[in-house]
This record gives sequence, C-alpha cells and structure tokens, in this order.
Amino acid sequence: MSTTVSPLAPKSYPEMPEIEGVQFATASAGIKYKDRTDVLLATVAEGTAVAGVFTRSKCSSAPVDWCKARVGGGKARALLVNSGNANAFTGKKGKAAVELSAEIVSRELGCSEGEIFLASTGVIGEPLPADKFSGVIGELKANQGSASWLDAAKAIMTTDTYPKVSTASVELDGVTVTINGIAKGAGMIAPDMATMLSFIYTDAPIAPSVLQALLSGEVDGSFNAVTVDSDTSTSDTVLLFATGAAGKKGVESVASLDDPRVDVLRAALGDVMLDLSHQIVRDGEGARKFVEVRVEGAESDGSAKRIALSIANSPLVKTAIAGEDANWGRVVMAVGKAGEPADRDKLAIWFGDVRVAVEGERDPDYSEAAASAVMEQEDIVIRVDLGLGSGQAAVWTCDLTKEYVAINGDYRS
Amino acid sequence: MSTTVSPLAPKSYPEMPEIEGVQFATASAGIKYKDRTDVLLATVAEGTAVAGVFTRSKCSSAPVDWCKARVGGGKARALLVNSGNANAFTGKKGKAAVELSAEIVSRELGCSEGEIFLASTGVIGEPLPADKFSGVIGELKANQGSASWLDAAKAIMTTDTYPKVSTASVELDGVTVTINGIAKGAGMIAPDMATMLSFIYTDAPIAPSVLQALLSGEVDGSFNAVTVDSDTSTSDTVLLFATGAAGKKGVESVASLDDPRVDVLRAALGDVMLDLSHQIVRDGEGARKFVEVRVEGAESDGSAKRIALSIANSPLVKTAIAGEDANWGRVVMAVGKAGEPADRDKLAIWFGDVRVAVEGERDPDYSEAAASAVMEQEDIVIRVDLGLGSGQAAVWTCDLTKEYVAINGDYRS
Repeated sequence: MSTTVSPLAPKSYPEMPEIEGVQFATASAGIKYKDRTDVLLATVAEGTAVAGVFTRSKCSSAPVDWCKARVGGGKARALLVNSGNANAFTGKKGKAAVELSAEIVSRELGCSEGEIFLASTGVIGEPLPADKFSGVIGELKANQGSASWLDAAKAIMTTDTYPKVSTASVELDGVTVTINGIAKGAGMIAPDMATMLSFIYTDAPIAPSVLQALLSGEVDGSFNAVTVDSDTSTSDTVLLFATGAAGKKGVESVASLDDPRVDVLRAALGDVMLDLSHQIVRDGEGARKFVEVRVEGAESDGSAKRIALSIANSPLVKTAIAGEDANWGRVVMAVGKAGEPADRDKLAIWFGDVRVAVEGERDPDYSEAAASAVMEQEDIVIRVDLGLGSGQAAVWTCDLTKEYVAINGDYRS
Repeated sequence: MSTTVSPLAPKSYPEMPEIEGVQFATASAGIKYKDRTDVLLATVAEGTAVAGVFTRSKCSSAPVDWCKARVGGGKARALLVNSGNANAFTGKKGKAAVELSAEIVSRELGCSEGEIFLASTGVIGEPLPADKFSGVIGELKANQGSASWLDAAKAIMTTDTYPKVSTASVELDGVTVTINGIAKGAGMIAPDMATMLSFIYTDAPIAPSVLQALLSGEVDGSFNAVTVDSDTSTSDTVLLFATGAAGKKGVESVASLDDPRVDVLRAALGDVMLDLSHQIVRDGEGARKFVEVRVEGAESDGSAKRIALSIANSPLVKTAIAGEDANWGRVVMAVGKAGEPADRDKLAIWFGDVRVAVEGERDPDYSEAAASAVMEQEDIVIRVDLGLGSGQAAVWTCDLTKEYVAINGDYRS
C-alpha cells in the first residue's frame, strides 16, 4: 500500500471551529492496525437530529444495514466508527457484531440502541471482533472532547494518505452557525482497502425531515459525482448530524423546506460535501491528476451525468490522462458508448480552454501543442458540448496509473 | 505499442480450407504503416448473401454507417478493409471518403456500390486518404486469390500481436460445408489503437434473412460477451457472407429458420465466433491471464450477464487477477454494484474448483493456499452462484496489468 502522501493533497488544513454538542474521542483497539488509532466515538447532545445516505450495493455491510434501519427515527446520541475491518460479507456473525457494538456503547452512555450509529471500514469477509470495543469504551467515554476533528479523521483512515476535513459557516437569524465534516476513503473496496465514509455536523437546529432532504439533495452533485475506478463500496455511508445548539443563541428551528434559510444552509452544506468528495478523489490510489469532466448540451441533466461518468470511468481516457496525451478520440468513444442521446456531428470537446473537436470532427484550428500543454497540468478540465439540449453535469475523477495497478495488484507479491 | 506476441496467443494456426467463391488480395497503400500490408480486398461470387452486426456506439464510424445502410439488401460482391485509419469522427470528409472508396471498387469490379462493404480501423479523427486506394485497386483485382486467410488476417491488424483465424466444417445433405472467419482487435478504440472487426464466410447456400438471424443469434454469446477494458469501439463490425457454392454440390438452400439444418449451422457458426472472440481477449493489451466469469442462479440470463460484466469490467477484480490474488471480496463488491437482483446471504463464489464464499460469508473450509494456486494459472474461471433463479451467463476478459497502462498511457512519452 502507498505510504507517501498524494501529490494532489491539500497544501494545508482549515481551522476547524468547535461545534457545541459534538465531542470526539479516539482509541487504539488493535482491530487490525498496530501503533495507530482505529476507533472513533463521537457523541452528540440529546435531541440531535440525524440524516443519512448509504451505498446502493446489494451486498451492503452489516453496519450499513444497521444504520439504514434506524436513521428514519431521526434521532442520534453517538457514532462508533472503526477502521481495519469493514464487517462486510460476514453473514450472521456480522449482524451479531453490530448488535454487540451497539449494546456496548448504549450501556456505557445510557442511551437507546436506536440512537447509536455504526460504521466500519477495512478488510471485508473477516468477522469483526466487536468484543474489542469493550476494552476501550470506558476510555472513549472518559476522553470525550479530547480528540480534534483532524484526530477523528485520522482514526477512520485505511489506505488514505491524508486525513480529510472541511468547514463552512453561515449566518442564521444573525447568529453564526457552523458545518464541519470529516471523510475517508477512495471510493473503492476490498480486503485491506478503503471505502467511502463521511460524517458531517452542524449546530444549526434543523428538523430531521429537512436534514434528510438537504443531505439527499446535495449528495448527487458531490459524493455521487466522484469516481476513482467505478467500483462501488459495500460500506459507503454519509451521516449528517444537527445538534441544534445554535437554538440557544436564538436561531429558530428550521422545520420546513419552504424556510428561506434552507437555501443558505444548502449552499454551505454543498460546499463542505463537494470539498470532502474532491479530497477523496485527490487521494485516489495512484492518482497524479485531478480531472473535472463537464458535459453540457445534453437532453437532460441525468443524461449529461451518465455521459460524464462514461468518460470519467473509461480506462482508455484515464490512461491517456496519465500519459498527458490530449487523446480526444477516446472522449468521443466514451460519449458514444454511454448509450445516451448523442449526435456525432454536433459534438464539441475542450481540454481546458482548448477546443479540440467541433461538429463531429477535429477542430480546424486544432493545436497539438496547446492541447498537450493543458494535459501537463495537475488539474485538468475536460468539457463536452453535445449540442442537443440544456442538460448538464460535472463529475470528478483521477488518472489511471501504473501505481494504481501496483497498489491493487502487487500488494501480495 | 507492444511488439512481442501475447503469451496467451494460440500455439498454432488451424489449416484453413478453401471456400469456393471467396478470394483475397492484400496490398500496401501506405495509409499509415510502413513496410506492411494495410488493405484487404475480398471478393465474393455473384449471388453471395450477407448479414452484419455493428457497434452500438452513438459515434459510429463512416464505414459502419455505410454498411448499416446497405446490409439490409442482403447481397454482396466485395469487402474492402484498411488498417491504420478508422475513418471515425471525420464528419463530412468521412462520408465522402467511404463514397469514394466504394466508387473506386465498384468501377474496377463492375458491380453496384450497394454490394460493396467497407471497414476501417486505426487512428480516429484523421481524414482517411481514400484516394490511395486508386493506386492499389488494379493490383488488388489482378491478385485476387493470391492471399491466404492468414495474409488477410494480417492485413487488418493494428495493435494485434498475432493474426486471428478460425474454421469449422459440417455436413449438409451429405456435403461438407465450411465456415471460415478472421478477426482483429482488442475491443478498444483510440488513435493508434485497435477496434474489433470480424469477417466470416461460408459456402453453404443460406438466404439473407436466415443468415442475419443466425449471426444476430450467436453474437450475444461470443463477440458481445468479451471485454478487455469496457471501452466500446466506434467501428466494431462483424459481417457474415454465404457464397452458396455448396449448392452446386447438391446442398439445398437454407431458406427458413425452421429448416432442421439451421441448428447444425448455428452450432458451427457459434464455435467459430466464440473462438475468434476468445482470441481477441487473449490479445488484450497487456493481458497475462485469460478469465472466464460464469454467473449462475440469477433471476434471468440478462441479469446474469450484467452481473458477469460488472465482475469482468471491475478494475479492482482485474488488478487482483494480475497480482494472482484470490481476492473474492472484490467479486462480492462487483456483484453488489451491478444493480441487479442479488441476496448477499445466498451468494457463493468459486475460483476454479475452490469455493471461497458461501451463504454470504467466507467458506468455512476456505483455503488461501488452494485459492492462490488457482490464481497462478494462465486460464482462470471465476464462478458466482446467486441462488435466486435459473438465469446464467458466461463472459470472458483478461487481467489489468501495468503493461496495459503503459501501452495506453506511455506511447507519447
């Protein structure tokens, strides 16, 4: 596994404000890793609202099944996350392990199991030794508040080469409310490999139904718009918690989507989710280039997104980017194979600001030198205009390098 | 580009019987390559029936558009194929190039343009210099019959590391009839890259409607069941020609799908198409392993095939195979992400004869050593039983190696 930090990693970490009602502690339970933290207990104030979105995998992990069954209740008191073992494809043992985990936490915190949320990431197919949580739960409770946002992000890492945090603040009723998030993973799964987890917190008072609508609305353009290798985790989990602590400072509860303050919150939440999802791509295994694929002029936004993902997931497009090759022919191929409405003779393609193809053929003013100069950049934008309608979408991916093959193919040799 | 022959190449070539009414000649028109043949003219006897299947790409090449518009006529006299330029994404110039190509051939052979079929493979986006055919058409006509099946297969190669031929013979009305085919390509497309072309011939007398039904029926389990990197060519073309020469030896024309001889022909045609499609995978860029993915117990055959392709196209599965890693967790992931009906707790997975997972968890008798021994083989079978129904499918792929990334990413550096 790669141990050097991705060259695409952020150059600095933001100052993360406190969020009243949220406390972290981490511990080393020795679930798989040695000499590092592998458990995060995050407690939230009584009355905290929760919302969640989860993997669409038909082989979802036991903790995903646990959370899906409880998030509808809309209330949370604690989140327990471990790295090193995904508790996925573990059958009845997996179900027993999440039940034991929740029991250990609820007994220690004295809250109901229905308000405890669980996430696991790491090896799949290995039974999770949940009894190891018993050995650290007292320490985790005693140390609540001792871990920073960065500490929390570090404890949930697997193949990540850097911790991922993001923050935004907005004014509601003249009061500053904060949205903080952490994330891990590179959108992939396998033994010893990563998955995608993100946990976001705000002190704004938001009703569970509004919170769920906000999260579900923003995920399509962020966590569901990034791809490293098109492989979907069995464990992907995004949870959004609202402690409501800002209510004590005079912020009225946001109880309806018609509330004008929803747009303000949506924009800030969207910024945090987009930032975290981009950080995941920038930590993609073997990644050397960060690529935005923008599709415009499609028959619908959905069609634009399916075409954008066809481009972003194409091994031939991704290897060309790795080779700094302005290979627009492969973009044409990826548009053509998407199965979406497209008219070859209306197609236009740009690398950065350089238009390489127009009206179904190479741009008459095409300059190999100009296009190649774009490909040498670390961040690259590929833009496609289908010329059919007003549908548009953007997705983000990275290049496909020999390091990706080495990390995923060589680690046993 | 790779110059060494794939380690998965067939160890020998079959003896290819003559097919009366089919003649080949090849030439070097210098379209792109130096010191090699790059044009094939294949003429067929008057009254030859033709059928075809083509890429589903929305950005299909000009020759594909030409053939699609004419194959319905059901009659053919000649096929002109060039390598080095795909005449794809060439706009109006591309349409003019195929019209000029057909005119050059029809004038020389004195047949109608509607009976001339065209295919091109190689660089896309570059205008095809069709006038170069004028310089070799006389030589191609004069030399008809001078090129062998292997010569023909060589003239249409691009990144192929070996020519692909296959043959089968069956008895119809006491007469031996033959089916011969050639193919090229590795199921991918891009400048300097390959596409998938196959041309199959028989001397059996078969009506065009029956011929098309036979071809369409067999393509799903052969050419449409192989994948190297999930990228679909803009130029994929399979043409099937029936000269009917065996009619002179007393074989009655096969004019209806109810004819009992159809099953005999279907089996032989299927064998040739499967053999050629497997040879394409064995020549996949960077391939070191040939992998059969078999899915059983699905709700339908279509569902089984979509799950099999999800496994066969997964970069994490393919890199694990390259690393000889018995990584069944990635197979679980690929089943889960396929979006098809699946029940984690009924899933069973085999590598070769070794069952690695059953009833939603690792097989209690799992042996890492036994599974790893399977992965060291050159040919590997991955079998998944969903335990839901009777739907089944098989697809074929290869591993994803650093050589693939090098071939597709490094050739400009």
